[in-house]
Amino acid sequence: MDQHPTEAGLPALYREMAPHHLFPLWEVLHALVTPAPRSAARPALWRYAEARDFLLRAGALISAEQAERRVLILENPALPGTSSVTPSLYAGLQLILPGEVAPCHRHAQSALRFVMEGSGAHTAVDGEKAIMRPSDLVLTPNWQWHDHGNGSDAPMIWLDGLDIPTVRFFEASFAERLDGPAHPETAPPGDTALRYGRNLRPFRGTAAARRPGSRPLFHYPHAEWSAALDALEAADAPDPHLGHALEFTNPADGGPVMPTIAAHVRRIPAGFTTRARRSTDGTVFVVVSGSGTARVEGTEFRLEERDLFVVPSWHALEIEAGPALTLFAYSDRAAQEALGLWREGRS
Amino acid sequence: MDQHPTEAGLPALYREMAPHHLFPLWEVLHALVTPAPRSAARPALWRYAEARDFLLRAGALISAEQAERRVLILENPALPGTSSVTPSLYAGLQLILPGEVAPCHRHAQSALRFVMEGSGAHTAVDGEKAIMRPSDLVLTPNWQWHDHGNGSDAPMIWLDGLDIPTVRFFEASFAERLDGPAHPETAPPGDTALRYGRNLRPFRGTAAARRPGSRPLFHYPHAEWSAALDALEAADAPDPHLGHALEFTNPADGGPVMPTIAAHVRRIPAGFTTRARRSTDGTVFVVVSGSGTARVEGTEFRLEERDLFVVPSWHALEIEAGPALTLFAYSDRAAQEALGLWREGRS
Amino acid sequence: MDQHPTEAGLPALYREMAPHHLFPLWEVLHALVTPAPRSAARPALWRYAEARDFLLRAGALISAEQAERRVLILENPALPGTSSVTPSLYAGLQLILPGEVAPCHRHAQSALRFVMEGSGAHTAVDGEKAIMRPSDLVLTPNWQWHDHGNGSDAPMIWLDGLDIPTVRFFEASFAERLDGPAHPETAPPGDTALRYGRNLRPFRGTAAARRPGSRPLFHYPHAEWSAALDALEAADAPDPHLGHALEFTNPADGGPVMPTIAAHVRRIPAGFTTRARRSTDGTVFVVVSGSGTARVEGTEFRLEERDLFVVPSWHALEIEAGPALTLFAYSDRAAQEALGLWREGRS
Amino acid sequence: MDQHPTEAGLPALYREMAPHHLFPLWEVLHALVTPAPRSAARPALWRYAEARDFLLRAGALISAEQAERRVLILENPALPGTSSVTPSLYAGLQLILPGEVAPCHRHAQSALRFVMEGSGAHTAVDGEKAIMRPSDLVLTPNWQWHDHGNGSDAPMIWLDGLDIPTVRFFEASFAERLDGPAHPETAPPGDTALRYGRNLRPFRGTAAARRPGSRPLFHYPHAEWSAALDALEAADAPDPHLGHALEFTNPADGGPVMPTIAAHVRRIPAGFTTRARRSTDGTVFVVVSGSGTARVEGTEFRLEERDLFVVPSWHALEIEAGPALTLFAYSDRAAQEALGLWREGRS
Repeated sequence: MDQHPTEAGLPALYREMAPHHLFPLWEVLHALVTPAPRSAARPALWRYAEARDFLLRAGALISAEQAERRVLILENPALPGTSSVTPSLYAGLQLILPGEVAPCHRHAQSALRFVMEGSGAHTAVDGEKAIMRPSDLVLTPNWQWHDHGNGSDAPMIWLDGLDIPTVRFFEASFAERLDGPAHPETAPPGDTALRYGRNLRPFRGTAAARRPGSRPLFHYPHAEWSAALDALEAADAPDPHLGHALEFTNPADGGPVMPTIAAHVRRIPAGFTTRARRSTDGTVFVVVSGSGTARVEGTEFRLEERDLFVVPSWHALEIEAGPALTLFAYSDRAAQEALGLWREGRS
Repeated sequence: MDQHPTEAGLPALYREMAPHHLFPLWEVLHALVTPAPRSAARPALWRYAEARDFLLRAGALISAEQAERRVLILENPALPGTSSVTPSLYAGLQLILPGEVAPCHRHAQSALRFVMEGSGAHTAVDGEKAIMRPSDLVLTPNWQWHDHGNGSDAPMIWLDGLDIPTVRFFEASFAERLDGPAHPETAPPGDTALRYGRNLRPFRGTAAARRPGSRPLFHYPHAEWSAALDALEAADAPDPHLGHALEFTNPADGGPVMPTIAAHVRRIPAGFTTRARRSTDGTVFVVVSGSGTARVEGTEFRLEERDLFVVPSWHALEIEAGPALTLFAYSDRAAQEALGLWREGRS
Repeated sequence: MDQHPTEAGLPALYREMAPHHLFPLWEVLHALVTPAPRSAARPALWRYAEARDFLLRAGALISAEQAERRVLILENPALPGTSSVTPSLYAGLQLILPGEVAPCHRHAQSALRFVMEGSGAHTAVDGEKAIMRPSDLVLTPNWQWHDHGNGSDAPMIWLDGLDIPTVRFFEASFAERLDGPAHPETAPPGDTALRYGRNLRPFRGTAAARRPGSRPLFHYPHAEWSAALDALEAADAPDPHLGHALEFTNPADGGPVMPTIAAHVRRIPAGFTTRARRSTDGTVFVVVSGSGTARVEGTEFRLEERDLFVVPSWHALEIEAGPALTLFAYSDRAAQEALGLWREGRS
Repeated sequence: MDQHPTEAGLPALYREMAPHHLFPLWEVLHALVTPAPRSAARPALWRYAEARDFLLRAGALISAEQAERRVLILENPALPGTSSVTPSLYAGLQLILPGEVAPCHRHAQSALRFVMEGSGAHTAVDGEKAIMRPSDLVLTPNWQWHDHGNGSDAPMIWLDGLDIPTVRFFEASFAERLDGPAHPETAPPGDTALRYGRNLRPFRGTAAARRPGSRPLFHYPHAEWSAALDALEAADAPDPHLGHALEFTNPADGGPVMPTIAAHVRRIPAGFTTRARRSTDGTVFVVVSGSGTARVEGTEFRLEERDLFVVPSWHALEIEAGPALTLFAYSDRAAQEALGLWREGRS
């Protein structure tokens, strides 16, 4: 007499169904719908000095033009083979040597650049150059033509932050290369910033609205955001969980810089330690200046200037500053808010 | 003399970098940023009659309450182990037997139900029941409490469409169970439809705005959508690529039913064949009535009533109706449009 | 020696400045910027029976076609010569006799119609007829072609509510007449309601999106709104200040029916008296059914079926129902909310 | 036998109806709904030198504190007794003498200030000062506390642009005075500009979001807008109808500076004449620098630095620059666009 008819019957059913691509939800429901996020990613730190060495060696071995983009991918140790730093985001360090160009292309993927070192190279977006200085933020939004070149006499290195895994996930990648290395120049450097970056916009109906109205601005200079952060620090007590923090915005709608990526900067005053905070947007950080310690759940990272680290979704982060720490950060918060998914928790 | 210093040098570099989680973009760029989508999924068809048999067998082996949800997952043959029907979406067939309940829970995942057979069971959302009839659409949006029960005397089967893979991708899953099997009744069936479903809304500032204002409606009866589709067919020539098609909307903003999922219905007139159309939103279809043939790139499916099939991203679809075909469909178009990624192509 | 140099000096200054069109703010500031609204309008009531008699006499004296629109304007007694019922709104009673047509025109002014008596006449909007039944609401939004005709065998009377004073105030009136009395028929009656009025919309990119997407729906039948109001009354306790109230919405965005005009319906249960409530949107009411008393600051109106009354901005309104009272109402709340001006006060 | 029964009958009907506040639409329809706007206003010019003299005389006769606001209203010659420069807008010239304050109040009316002369006085908004320089734009939006003071050693004069007639029209005026002359200081000058004016915003959820998020910025310095206009002139050919033109925006949403008022600046290159353009938004202009001629339908104005002029709705405007002309302008375009009424015509 079978005392366990159910147990015996289910495996047989599973075996018969599987070839029909039918599977029992009840065996996996609790893994599919978890009570809180369980990130596939792992906290990780990249020492800039090490990465820089490898990048310069790569610079001796392959040209920017040959590579199309000469970039070292920062891949999350827990996501091997994915080229992802978090499940939804990509991070890479790009090198352009003096005299080099990276040819012009465009794609459905949205990108940001954050300058790690060097000064005077450019990113051109739809034919307008942003002359890049250390710690500048430059955007190349979805489907805008872009190329890079280094007219300075020193190597130029920046962080590339893209939504490559997000576009791959939604299976919506499109890309094309422009014939020739560079887009014809369409405007002098700074032109867009003057039209859209000063709380102004071209009067509607005039030719002055040269750029796509929904996402015109692409250069956020260090000189501007750091002055704002300095002022904030002078005026306010630090937020217990964040220190001082400012988000970059799209002047066309006041929202995040791109539909898939949000970016912000933080200042942790000297000697200050933030309280634990977690959020669902796994976040990539760059140490712009200062030093200190980051604690991400059980993991502790000693932070030095220009180091990069990643905090996965729903991992509690505390930051302790030695000398005042300034951080740049980007995440998929823009996408998560658009989809009604973003949450945070503060202890 | 080494004539290929570069080739020799790069592998060495790669070997040294890998332990530092640094990898060369130029070896993978063309796979990461493709000129057009290359879906990981494959076109697939599930015969309803077959799936139904397995489901009823499962019904004899495990109770709805034991299973929490007694559902067979329709997993894409090209995505084994993922419980996904497309990379971003989930599909399952749920059975509730007479007298059964599926206990009350809520989660960050958004769900739709499309009734395959049976009449009179209910989905309760935040304590208000939708009495489900064949081919009704019922929503259980993100973080709204829901439970199911079958007070009828026949089995009830519906399709569950969820954004489980999307929430997993963004690592933003939250869930909780309510104590006890059912949420207390908060309103009679149909209450929300009367308040929000007739191009009306409760006067703001009154208690009548009982439901969350941004996403109040959750029941779209077959009687309504099929009458609209009949009228459309009587009035218009069919669109060459779509036949007649109506999208379900959220009355609070006129947009898609949920932030991550869009749903629509189509009618292909008897004898009509649609021209090839592709879009970036991989789509799950249910044959509501009629029969015919679907051609998805090289694959051909013979369609019978209640069959289910999936068309991956950027796969050209042509549909040929024998007797008039009525289809229900859902996809991630809502998410893709919010993120600026959605595209279509018509031949 | 002048002991009041200032007083003497100011009048002289005023006299000299006036021809230069310069005037002292300080003499009028407190009238221009008041601590609370002081309406130029006055509460007023129109007995439907009286107005109807005049309207039928007008019907014997001038044809609908001669008049272009045979309408009696309900002018606020405190706003003589303005054709306004409140400073921003217009109200009129329109008569179409059997066999008559009102010729086709369009204008920047937005209009609503609320049927007072008769059944079977039509308003055609861009060539699609709404067959009008008692207490139906019909819209003719800004710049949409419209004409009326009465194919029934009885006189048809409706209330016209327009934003004529608002468009006059902003000096933005445009209008044109169509050659010929009627727009060619573009769709059968009810076509738009089926495409847009059932929480559906035509699949984007198909010809089915025949109507302007931002404002497609124009017919809100009494059968629908009254059933919703009945259900609300059965389910909820009345709101102390409003009774039961539902606002008509634009399904394309979930907002008010037109950018300048909002409309709603109320039910005051038999024997119920609402508490005093004031709001900045002066409001026109129609007694759809029932009877009772309205108290508007010091003024008291006895209400009978089909009577019309107006409550100016910021006048406290209390309504006492004898038998249950059903009211239709429209106001400029839509405009005021768009401009950040709307407020209410509840006692 | 009466050969004109209709004509005889209508006047009698009109006489009988009038006491019931009922009037025939057909006698006034063509005046109410005109084929194009007929402005009640008239083009007008105010010489700054003249107005300034009167204003300084007023300064000798009444204190800023006594006057609450010491302002000369620029009243449209065709709108006597209305304190309006166009039907929807107000313009005035305000004088603050050294050491004076204008006491703190707030109101539903939205205001802008454009500095005509003087440097170093302030407008404080919710307790944060904007230090005002010539040709700066300063906002005091709806219901934000504001006061003014002149700590410099010279008189300070600015243009006040408000929506007083619009708020009066909608009967939605609210106002209150703060006890004491000034709001306590809440932040140092420039604090808001640093938080919100550099394409940044305080990270959400932190105390740094000190200002109302929907309308935080209130100071648009001349140094910024004129640099942008200079750059535009260097880069582009002038628009034939506008010259070079930039609109001020609200960084929180990328739209107009306030819900009722839009503001912009123009540059007409030396010797350039714009083609005729009309729009429904009657507009107030200030000559910031340069000189030239404005032709408004039949009227011609010789323009000198700091003169002010008004162009009514739908009046064709051509501007001829002698030396390059820079203009500041404000209008009700923001309101008209929100209400779906705005149009322009270009010849």
